[in-house]
Amino acid sequence: MAPSQYSVANGEVRIDDEFWSPWIDRNRSVTVEYQYDQLEASGTLDNFRRVIDGKEGGFRGMWFQDSDAYKWLEAASYELAKADDPDLRERVDDVIDLVAGAQADDGYLNTYFQLVEPGKKWTNLHMLHELYCAGHLIEAAVAHYEATGEKSLLDVATAFADHVDDVFPDEVDGVPGHEEIELALVRLYRVTDEERYLDLAQYFVDRRGHDDRLAWELDRLEEIGGGEYDSDDWEGSIHEGSRTVFLDDDGEYDGSYAQAHAPVREQDAVAGHSVRAMYLYAAVTDLVAERGDEDLRGALDRLWSNMTARQMYVTGGIGPEHEHEGFTEDYDLPNESAYAETCAAIGSIFWNQRMAELTTESKYADLIERTLYNGFLAGVGLDGKHFFYVNPLASEGDHHRKGWFTCACCPPNAARLFASLGQYLYTTDDDELYVNQYVGSTLSTTVGDTDVELEQTSDLPWEGTVTIDVDADGSVPVNVRIPEWCDDATVAVDGEEVDHGGSGYLRLEREWDGERIELEFAQRTDVVAAHPAVEADAGRVAVERGPLVYAAEAVDNDRPLHQYAVPTEPDVTATHEPDSLNGVTALETDATVPSLDGWGDELYRSAAEADTEDDRLELIPYYAWDNREPGEMQVWHRADDA
Amino acid sequence: MAPSQYSVANGEVRIDDEFWSPWIDRNRSVTVEYQYDQLEASGTLDNFRRVIDGKEGGFRGMWFQDSDAYKWLEAASYELAKADDPDLRERVDDVIDLVAGAQADDGYLNTYFQLVEPGKKWTNLHMLHELYCAGHLIEAAVAHYEATGEKSLLDVATAFADHVDDVFPDEVDGVPGHEEIELALVRLYRVTDEERYLDLAQYFVDRRGHDDRLAWELDRLEEIGGGEYDSDDWEGSIHEGSRTVFLDDDGEYDGSYAQAHAPVREQDAVAGHSVRAMYLYAAVTDLVAERGDEDLRGALDRLWSNMTARQMYVTGGIGPEHEHEGFTEDYDLPNESAYAETCAAIGSIFWNQRMAELTTESKYADLIERTLYNGFLAGVGLDGKHFFYVNPLASEGDHHRKGWFTCACCPPNAARLFASLGQYLYTTDDDELYVNQYVGSTLSTTVGDTDVELEQTSDLPWEGTVTIDVDADGSVPVNVRIPEWCDDATVAVDGEEVDHGGSGYLRLEREWDGERIELEFAQRTDVVAAHPAVEADAGRVAVERGPLVYAAEAVDNDRPLHQYAVPTEPDVTATHEPDSLNGVTALETDATVPSLDGWGDELYRSAAEADTEDDRLELIPYYAWDNREPGEMQVWHRADDA
Repeated sequence: MAPSQYSVANGEVRIDDEFWSPWIDRNRSVTVEYQYDQLEASGTLDNFRRVIDGKEGGFRGMWFQDSDAYKWLEAASYELAKADDPDLRERVDDVIDLVAGAQADDGYLNTYFQLVEPGKKWTNLHMLHELYCAGHLIEAAVAHYEATGEKSLLDVATAFADHVDDVFPDEVDGVPGHEEIELALVRLYRVTDEERYLDLAQYFVDRRGHDDRLAWELDRLEEIGGGEYDSDDWEGSIHEGSRTVFLDDDGEYDGSYAQAHAPVREQDAVAGHSVRAMYLYAAVTDLVAERGDEDLRGALDRLWSNMTARQMYVTGGIGPEHEHEGFTEDYDLPNESAYAETCAAIGSIFWNQRMAELTTESKYADLIERTLYNGFLAGVGLDGKHFFYVNPLASEGDHHRKGWFTCACCPPNAARLFASLGQYLYTTDDDELYVNQYVGSTLSTTVGDTDVELEQTSDLPWEGTVTIDVDADGSVPVNVRIPEWCDDATVAVDGEEVDHGGSGYLRLEREWDGERIELEFAQRTDVVAAHPAVEADAGRVAVERGPLVYAAEAVDNDRPLHQYAVPTEPDVTATHEPDSLNGVTALETDATVPSLDGWGDELYRSAAEADTEDDRLELIPYYAWDNREPGEMQVWHRADDA
Repeated sequence: MAPSQYSVANGEVRIDDEFWSPWIDRNRSVTVEYQYDQLEASGTLDNFRRVIDGKEGGFRGMWFQDSDAYKWLEAASYELAKADDPDLRERVDDVIDLVAGAQADDGYLNTYFQLVEPGKKWTNLHMLHELYCAGHLIEAAVAHYEATGEKSLLDVATAFADHVDDVFPDEVDGVPGHEEIELALVRLYRVTDEERYLDLAQYFVDRRGHDDRLAWELDRLEEIGGGEYDSDDWEGSIHEGSRTVFLDDDGEYDGSYAQAHAPVREQDAVAGHSVRAMYLYAAVTDLVAERGDEDLRGALDRLWSNMTARQMYVTGGIGPEHEHEGFTEDYDLPNESAYAETCAAIGSIFWNQRMAELTTESKYADLIERTLYNGFLAGVGLDGKHFFYVNPLASEGDHHRKGWFTCACCPPNAARLFASLGQYLYTTDDDELYVNQYVGSTLSTTVGDTDVELEQTSDLPWEGTVTIDVDADGSVPVNVRIPEWCDDATVAVDGEEVDHGGSGYLRLEREWDGERIELEFAQRTDVVAAHPAVEADAGRVAVERGPLVYAAEAVDNDRPLHQYAVPTEPDVTATHEPDSLNGVTALETDATVPSLDGWGDELYRSAAEADTEDDRLELIPYYAWDNREPGEMQVWHRADDA
């Protein structure tokens, strides 16, 4: 069974969008370049060179350092798919040469194990990330092949995948602690048509949750000297941190950290390290799309419902807990101490895109939109050089983006998402076209046998006007998504208004010969409350406008932010400020603050005597916070129903 | 200059009060006995025995363990002052024999240094607490002498005080890190009339804030091996923890932890370890009372204003921060993470009693009342066997009283306060009598040359009826305090109503021949707000009734507590429940909670559509929390102004 829809390939889309293009351009000119420089500076490429030169030891970086090279290759390949760039192509080829050169004769490739512990391969699946790195190699190879048609990296990836296929499960029967290879193997299957890669992905998914292998590893890790987990020591001793992160407070193995607490098909609630969870669920979605496993499909629906109804920030961010970088329990969504890793938001986009491909439900594209504009985008500074690993929804002003991280997963992950954003805009199935995201762009693709050309303009997120000019060889239904945030949408085709049923896909079927679809999504400021069970947001509201979640920052407001209370139906002024924060529409809402009159030396006094006075609260898009003077920030404001 | 007022000696008051007598009786029958057993079980008495036997090493407990014996002696002496008790007297005498026997020929007495580091006396004034222990010895000795007229312990105390007076400042020029000896020396002066003890107290107060001695100690501690501060290791290695607690995040000495950041007379804001601060300010108040130092008096006023207007919980608790057990900055009063050590509340009572003695202002007795009924009393379980060291104002249900502590300062401190509660009820000056606390009791004292007998009945805190029958040899003005929490008080003498000006002392001057003063303090439920600068209480209210702060506990309420919102002018039902929590008046207030109707799978939805519904919130006195099934607790509830 094939998926209901497919993502349109990155190379078939050209983005030209007032909002997104500057981000994508900065990603190309700043992040991808910086990331490349980091491959040298961090020793990542030297690790490959040392293997090629037959040296021992001298490994630099984290034990999954290879994946940085692969993520860069993937991002760079997406760039090459959009436009040739000889300089970039040359560097890509050079890095591929290093990667290929380091590959062992049997296909094995992992510079940490090759340099440091050649005798210990496949002995610590759960923390030492050989399969995780393999997955990123495969993803890079597929992207490179799709971009260039060249097999230089694809051959390396298939050789390694074949080696993994030899080893698992006959020699080693276990699953990676950090999922990634599963979704990569499906991608590899889709470009090679080799069913064994799909079978291997299925094996890794099905085997998860049977923990005899892990017990064996825990014993073995004792032999090879796994220490107590101490994140401060990660840089100094790679094996530290590899053993007890799986253990709960009682020192017992639980497995939920790696989604291994139960077989995937029995799981009901998202759990554990949130990036791992997202990569797993993305792979499972691919498998369901390919093979139609109803049990797994049921699990996906349960997991998605649990995440979105009980374990997700209003920004689309997920995983509140720092210690395990992941999920905790239903409705546990603290704001200031939120983890909400940037990579987890990216992972959620990966999963939801696959759910959108699998189904014809618009809610997945709705969630991608929310996550893109908020939980993901906040992770990247306006300069393209600084990144949040952690995305709190409130701050005392002491949380700032950094240039790079010891565990540098987020910046390269952001880079590959920006570089491939085109593939998140449209999906097709055998007969129809779906417009999922409103980003100015052109599309040249084929739906069934019909060539389709499409040109979209959009002034989202600031306004809600979208035009889509469609040309096709024949009759192709075009499904346009009316966003969940819009309750006042008008749709016209060729100047004639079309009835619609509100949010969801609106199917427009006709012969297309340059007709224009005009969409008008009224941008309303919405004040939202969280479910009553969410303690952190009790009595609080968040302000949204269109797809954007807004935040208050100290720099725009005179009072400490805790003093503002916002009505649930406020009077809001939206002002586009082209010179502020690279251009944003800022909001100003009426609010009340405590009157300071009448407060003398009392620290406490009768509440009935404590007056409030009218004030205004200024808000900026959440993604834009921490780009000016440091200070308090909050997304959830006290509600004032007076 | 003598203080304006004096506390009436403990022995002149007999408490017979429906509310307080059971606490005091449990303290005598449970806590004082348990505390004595602990002196044996913990090795505290054995430390003295080892010194007597000329042994080396083998010291048990914390390095200030001796003070446990002294605090017990002080509490037991207060009991002996109220009623003879041959068994208790015998044990007191036995312990005094041990203490006296361990004293060195030169008067020195500290079993830690005598057993463990005899060559290192006075080398770590700031953390190793020789002077702190000396202070508790002196306080015990004064209490024992006042209770029994015997000098057995007083002689030990004066010999040690004389030794300290010899050593300081000629041999050692420095001050203790933990204040205590200062106020003890004033007490010693008052029973011995030896001016040199007052001079020594003055020296310790005046020298504080000149940190050259501490710099010397920090160097020296490096020689003798002070390690990094690690509270887990306190038991294992006494010197650990003795060095870096003074250092700020940058490793610099700041001194505020021990109120040594500036000379006391220049200080403007309460700072550092809150128990130390209270003991210091208490001593300073005594010194001002004795010597009328206007600069110190000015500092006291500034410090008191800062504490009460900016750094005090509504319970009277102080010191929000765990790490340094103390004050932080203005308006920093987090609820769930509050420290608010029981000993700090007790220290505040010590200080405020002295401020009440120094002045004729009722605000100090008002604060003592608030602290007694709330911040202090919560520290003691209803069984008299379990104690809070830390008194948060909100809890998820995981904070519970414990039987004893490694650093067992709070239980013995509570014991000596309960045992001496009589001395907090009345003060006199040369001509007048002041009734400060409404606790059923009899008083026999002398005001000037006039003998006064007084009998008080009170049904506080549940109701507000107080009677005071006064007999005197002549005309004595009796000043009755109209509490700050009461805005509807009636006062009658001999059946005739007396006009008054509201809260504060009302002076009733006449010949007294058994006339009855009748006081009626209407008990109103008051809903209070905190100053707008207090972030933790923004949009929140606390409920008080009379002198009591109330709290909500999960066991009484169906919804999670964060879901309740309380109006600022609620409809409250007060019900006395004699069988609940040893008898309390519980409150039930109207409240709103979010309606769960209309919440389906959404985690977020339009705030305007989120309804509330009426509910009731049950409240119990804060002091009584955590005496039933564990669960959430909160003092500050969301305010509902709708």
